Amino acid sequence: MNSNLQKAYDELLAKSKELTILQSTTAIVNWDMETKMPPKALNLRSQQMALLELISHKMLTDPQVGKTLEGIEKAPGYTEFDTVQKRNVYLARKAYDEATKLPESLVFDTAKQQTIAVGVWKKAKAAKDYKMFKPELKKMIELRQKAADILMGVKGTKTPYDALLDDFESKMTADKITKVFDEMRVGLIDVMKRVEKSGYKPDKSILSRPVPINVQKKISDAAMDYIGYDTKSPNAGGRLDETEHPFTTGYYDDVRITTHYHEGRWVSSLYSVMHEGGHALYDQNLPQAWMYQPIGSASSYGIHESQSRFIENMVGRSPEFLSYMLPRLKKIVGKPLRGVKFADFFAAVNVVEPSKIRIEADEVTYGLHIIIRFEMERDIFAGRLTVEELPQAWNEKYDKYLGVEIENDGEGVMQDTHWASGYYGYFPSYALGNIYGGMFLKKLKKDDPTWKKELKKGNFQPVKNWMIENVHSKGNLYDPADLVKEVTGETLKVKPFISYLEKKFGKIYGF
Amino acid sequence: MNSNLQKAYDELLAKSKELTILQSTTAIVNWDMETKMPPKALNLRSQQMALLELISHKMLTDPQVGKTLEGIEKAPGYTEFDTVQKRNVYLARKAYDEATKLPESLVFDTAKQQTIAVGVWKKAKAAKDYKMFKPELKKMIELRQKAADILMGVKGTKTPYDALLDDFESKMTADKITKVFDEMRVGLIDVMKRVEKSGYKPDKSILSRPVPINVQKKISDAAMDYIGYDTKSPNAGGRLDETEHPFTTGYYDDVRITTHYHEGRWVSSLYSVMHEGGHALYDQNLPQAWMYQPIGSASSYGIHESQSRFIENMVGRSPEFLSYMLPRLKKIVGKPLRGVKFADFFAAVNVVEPSKIRIEADEVTYGLHIIIRFEMERDIFAGRLTVEELPQAWNEKYDKYLGVEIENDGEGVMQDTHWASGYYGYFPSYALGNIYGGMFLKKLKKDDPTWKKELKKGNFQPVKNWMIENVHSKGNLYDPADLVKEVTGETLKVKPFISYLEKKFGKIYGF
Repeated sequence: MNSNLQKAYDELLAKSKELTILQSTTAIVNWDMETKMPPKALNLRSQQMALLELISHKMLTDPQVGKTLEGIEKAPGYTEFDTVQKRNVYLARKAYDEATKLPESLVFDTAKQQTIAVGVWKKAKAAKDYKMFKPELKKMIELRQKAADILMGVKGTKTPYDALLDDFESKMTADKITKVFDEMRVGLIDVMKRVEKSGYKPDKSILSRPVPINVQKKISDAAMDYIGYDTKSPNAGGRLDETEHPFTTGYYDDVRITTHYHEGRWVSSLYSVMHEGGHALYDQNLPQAWMYQPIGSASSYGIHESQSRFIENMVGRSPEFLSYMLPRLKKIVGKPLRGVKFADFFAAVNVVEPSKIRIEADEVTYGLHIIIRFEMERDIFAGRLTVEELPQAWNEKYDKYLGVEIENDGEGVMQDTHWASGYYGYFPSYALGNIYGGMFLKKLKKDDPTWKKELKKGNFQPVKNWMIENVHSKGNLYDPADLVKEVTGETLKVKPFISYLEKKFGKIYGF
Repeated sequence: MNSNLQKAYDELLAKSKELTILQSTTAIVNWDMETKMPPKALNLRSQQMALLELISHKMLTDPQVGKTLEGIEKAPGYTEFDTVQKRNVYLARKAYDEATKLPESLVFDTAKQQTIAVGVWKKAKAAKDYKMFKPELKKMIELRQKAADILMGVKGTKTPYDALLDDFESKMTADKITKVFDEMRVGLIDVMKRVEKSGYKPDKSILSRPVPINVQKKISDAAMDYIGYDTKSPNAGGRLDETEHPFTTGYYDDVRITTHYHEGRWVSSLYSVMHEGGHALYDQNLPQAWMYQPIGSASSYGIHESQSRFIENMVGRSPEFLSYMLPRLKKIVGKPLRGVKFADFFAAVNVVEPSKIRIEADEVTYGLHIIIRFEMERDIFAGRLTVEELPQAWNEKYDKYLGVEIENDGEGVMQDTHWASGYYGYFPSYALGNIYGGMFLKKLKKDDPTWKKELKKGNFQPVKNWMIENVHSKGNLYDPADLVKEVTGETLKVKPFISYLEKKFGKIYGF
């Protein structure tokens, strides 16, 4: 590389570093807001967040970055860049174009409408009154439609909705998703029906026996110990706190998770810790050498979700993990687990049951909740579904796919915050995470047939190492579909995930 | 005000608001570093802090601010500005000049040397090896000397050291401090000697009876309840956490304190909470109308210290507070306080005893520790004392003023971090806080003779209201000496503080 080109590349990385450090700071300030902030500080904090956002936006759209990028891309030496360098330039270019092509007024109006719509959504949901929410939702969709129209040009996608999808799942399209989701829907409904037909109803009451919160905290410790998410050693890079909705945030050496404790739903926290722990391990194990570079980030929301769901479900709800954990849980929990048999406990944490609420759904029906949302988003942005028709379309799909009857829009079309927040294109990543997870599982089995035996011994290291080597260590070198191809040698396939479900739930429900 | 001038003034306030919001964000990130941050994050955090510092410095030195300031100051309408407006312009001008007149290289070198010197100081202190520390201290003093020489011009002070003092105590000079400290030294030594002569040695062992930390936390709650520092209501603007060295940080609606718990030193936390709570009440009760303006800040370090010391000592170590608190402490603490008589407890928390370590000193001898540091700083920057001579000078003064023999430089000249950090001119504020406190006390007694009776009933409100009305509500409208004049009608006087000590300790020690 000639020295001018080297200088330009170094400059680009320096700008990227500055932006990354600022964003990692914002993550901490946001974490504080969710976990520690005194309530009176809300207004001050919203101004602090807005200022950080403004500074970040200025850095991101700094014309100097545009010039540097152009200089690099036009330089004859650019073709000799290695894969990593090219990906860094590509990612920086993508972020720059997307940020600069959206008019600031649109960005501003969207942020404002987000606050308004989320505020109204909360009230409308509580009042079960879709009419109240409708005008704000409509405005939000229109704003995102405008952004999508512009981003379609910038990103070169076929449709506006594809441009929105690309924000969460780079290069993914509605056509591709429709294809895999159609197949997944059939598979999921099939498993769900076979579960229903089996007639077996595991006793879930074990899970609602009250367990004091200080005892549940010991379960969290056991779960974090199991997966090796370190919050206690002198070199710990994580910590656990409490919020109503669990989340993960942070960067590399400072990645924090949260959980929630409910006395009468004590496994909820166990699985929140496993889920968020899965996210955290990904962020903590991105390659050190890529820290502060564009490539030093996760591949996509879907890949992130594959990691959290793998640890929550494929590990955390496996017979091997549970047979290791149950005796330990009995020691921690005491009376509420006294005399509980392994088979009953295993079945209880794996109950399959169609329900109305996504975040309470089991491993099998969860995907159906997502498919419903995806199909509706897709149709909205294709002009095939109006805001007026949403509640009815929602209720019909819930009846058709899950066989449940939605009684009001609070538990129906208004149950999630995503649409009020303007996050269209986000939902599919959840189910794509399951699909990626199924493919990773298949490959892991092949690469290391002993992994399950090790889980049973309490040894999570083989799974962790496989994930680090195959997923975490690749950072954002690939778009998600390419990463999956690179890891498994295959294009996107639903079958491994469905096979996993069939085998697991076949054993529990006897089909 | 004409519309151009109004526009310029609004612009100035907008810039000030942006800077203030950023600095309040930095305070939260710093708080996180001291209290919650996973240890592995240290390097990332130092980069985050450096970036915030850089952005803050850019805002502070923005040439547009200089132009706006000049426009305002030269406008004919400026003379018609009211006191608040003029003070805002004055404070903004002061901050701008001080920030822009120091070469960036000097600022950068000083920050770098600070990290180095503090690192070496820690090691040298542990090794009791002044020789190790000396070269770094020397460099640090030289850098601050350079800054002082420049700032002397900017601020128009008589000496370079006065320019450093001005950073902490606006318009205060070494001459003025020497005058009051000379008088204070005589007074303090006199009280100390009378205590010694009395022969009475209160039994301190009550205070070293082990009290479990979870019990001590209930004492913290009682102390916070007493002074009305709210960490628990739905509109709380504060919180309490733990750090080795207690501190207060934050802004208006988000002001947080920390304390430390040692099983065998259980009153330490009680008084840390009272002290930091005093700082916090000041910051929380600055005028709402001045939020985000230059004037919406504390008057000085010394005034801040007057608030914390007033609550820690004049309230917290008073017989009235203690007679209210002791029965409650007995309930909380149980056995360690069983059978303890009020007079013995009161005497135990008020033991006067010359010691080597500033942060462990009592109300009487504390000021002597400060005077020693002040005299040495003053003489260093006047060229009358060299870095080579520091340890000997230190030890001689400790012998002369306090009658204690320093055995090594770890417990001597290297005990504090301030000089390694380059904070010359900081120490005097601690003792000025006591002096201001004495003057406020005298005025409070006159304004509200019932205040002590109310303390005894558990009613802190009269003291708090007096402080809010007289000190907090005035924000940064006055330099500290002017504020004291405004409140008490008097110029700086040591007598009220010494009289307070004589009366209080005369009663305890019978002189």
